[in-house]
Amino acid sequence: MGQKKAVVLSSGGIDSTTAMAVAAREGFEIYSLSFRYGQRHKVELESAQKVAAALGAKKHLVIDIDPAVFGGSALTDNIDVPKGRSDAEMEAEIPVTYVPARNTIFLSYALAWAEVLEAFDIFIGVTAVDYSGYPDCRPEFIAALEVLANLATKAGVEGKTIRIHAPLLDLTKSEIIRLGLILGVDYSLTHSCYDPGPGGEACGECDTCKLRLKGFREAGMEDPVRYKK
Amino acid sequence: MGQKKAVVLSSGGIDSTTAMAVAAREGFEIYSLSFRYGQRHKVELESAQKVAAALGAKKHLVIDIDPAVFGGSALTDNIDVPKGRSDAEMEAEIPVTYVPARNTIFLSYALAWAEVLEAFDIFIGVTAVDYSGYPDCRPEFIAALEVLANLATKAGVEGKTIRIHAPLLDLTKSEIIRLGLILGVDYSLTHSCYDPGPGGEACGECDTCKLRLKGFREAGMEDPVRYKK
Repeated sequence: MGQKKAVVLSSGGIDSTTAMAVAAREGFEIYSLSFRYGQRHKVELESAQKVAAALGAKKHLVIDIDPAVFGGSALTDNIDVPKGRSDAEMEAEIPVTYVPARNTIFLSYALAWAEVLEAFDIFIGVTAVDYSGYPDCRPEFIAALEVLANLATKAGVEGKTIRIHAPLLDLTKSEIIRLGLILGVDYSLTHSCYDPGPGGEACGECDTCKLRLKGFREAGMEDPVRYKK
Repeated sequence: MGQKKAVVLSSGGIDSTTAMAVAAREGFEIYSLSFRYGQRHKVELESAQKVAAALGAKKHLVIDIDPAVFGGSALTDNIDVPKGRSDAEMEAEIPVTYVPARNTIFLSYALAWAEVLEAFDIFIGVTAVDYSGYPDCRPEFIAALEVLANLATKAGVEGKTIRIHAPLLDLTKSEIIRLGLILGVDYSLTHSCYDPGPGGEACGECDTCKLRLKGFREAGMEDPVRYKK
């Protein structure tokens, strides 16, 4: 029997990169999957490519997502990305950077690719702890998706079991970073910022930069990526 | 309060067209959603456009699906479409015209659009009776998807309920056709064939043509679309 395959969703950020490192450590052959959906910055996709190479992925696939249905999100429209929000503000509401049903769409594609590859394992780096208010990062969402995956596919009909792995679900950002460092992740390859500068440098002010910086601070480490100031 | 909105998945075929007619009869404002994913024939999308217009849809949206993940299906690759199979053969296995996780991907997009529109109702014309062996046409798949929809979205977090309507789930093809005729559907606008001729005429031999012709025969009606012979 050959090495077991896993499809790993990758944004090039800290969480998905760490999830990919977990999959690699568990011995899976990695099929890295990223999405292009009218993001305002391409540096994210370049990071995903570098991460896949660094973690020895067998294949890295970028899928084009038609953003026609995604009205109303700062990540794809021209709404201003919020900056300098307090932790309480970030936790209080679903942020404007929310893309409707994004993880559902991403996981649907992962499921399709898994079916073609005859892979039965999908990794996603969501965390319910520092989840920034996104409904589709909750453990009950992942559980419901695993049920669906086994009903939606040939694998389920044929008595095989598809597993959706969310190995970071119960970890804080600093715990994720510490786990990644144990697994040898090079976080200088990753990218998180919603509003990077022309050279790809992070703004340090958007929700995701603040979460990232707080994570590194709490892990007692310096963030290796470049910031504007 | 304005008219309630519903997103209706439409392929331009008999089932989704009838499901759209049911949604219209129930008083919903219709948002018709179709997909372009490297189909070998564009006549399907033209039918979906005509059907949406005929049923008074408020909007008809066509989403481009990147077929990069969809290896291994006759609908998107260059595998021959099977013809002249017996009913027993059609029922015995998952056909090569199966597109991996297709309905999961389609419903994910419907969910995203519903969220942007603030619609809480999604219609899909799947049927478990003449379901041609597709795993994602089973009632338990639809039920699991409804659970997921309410966990994946802001609506669910805010205590609203999203419903996935599959009004044809327990109907045979001939029952669907009879229901559609009661609702005033013009089936000459629809298209089903996997392998149409240059003028859009149906082959009469592929699995879906055979199911369609059997449905009309059992409904005691003549199929109004054109066939090659």
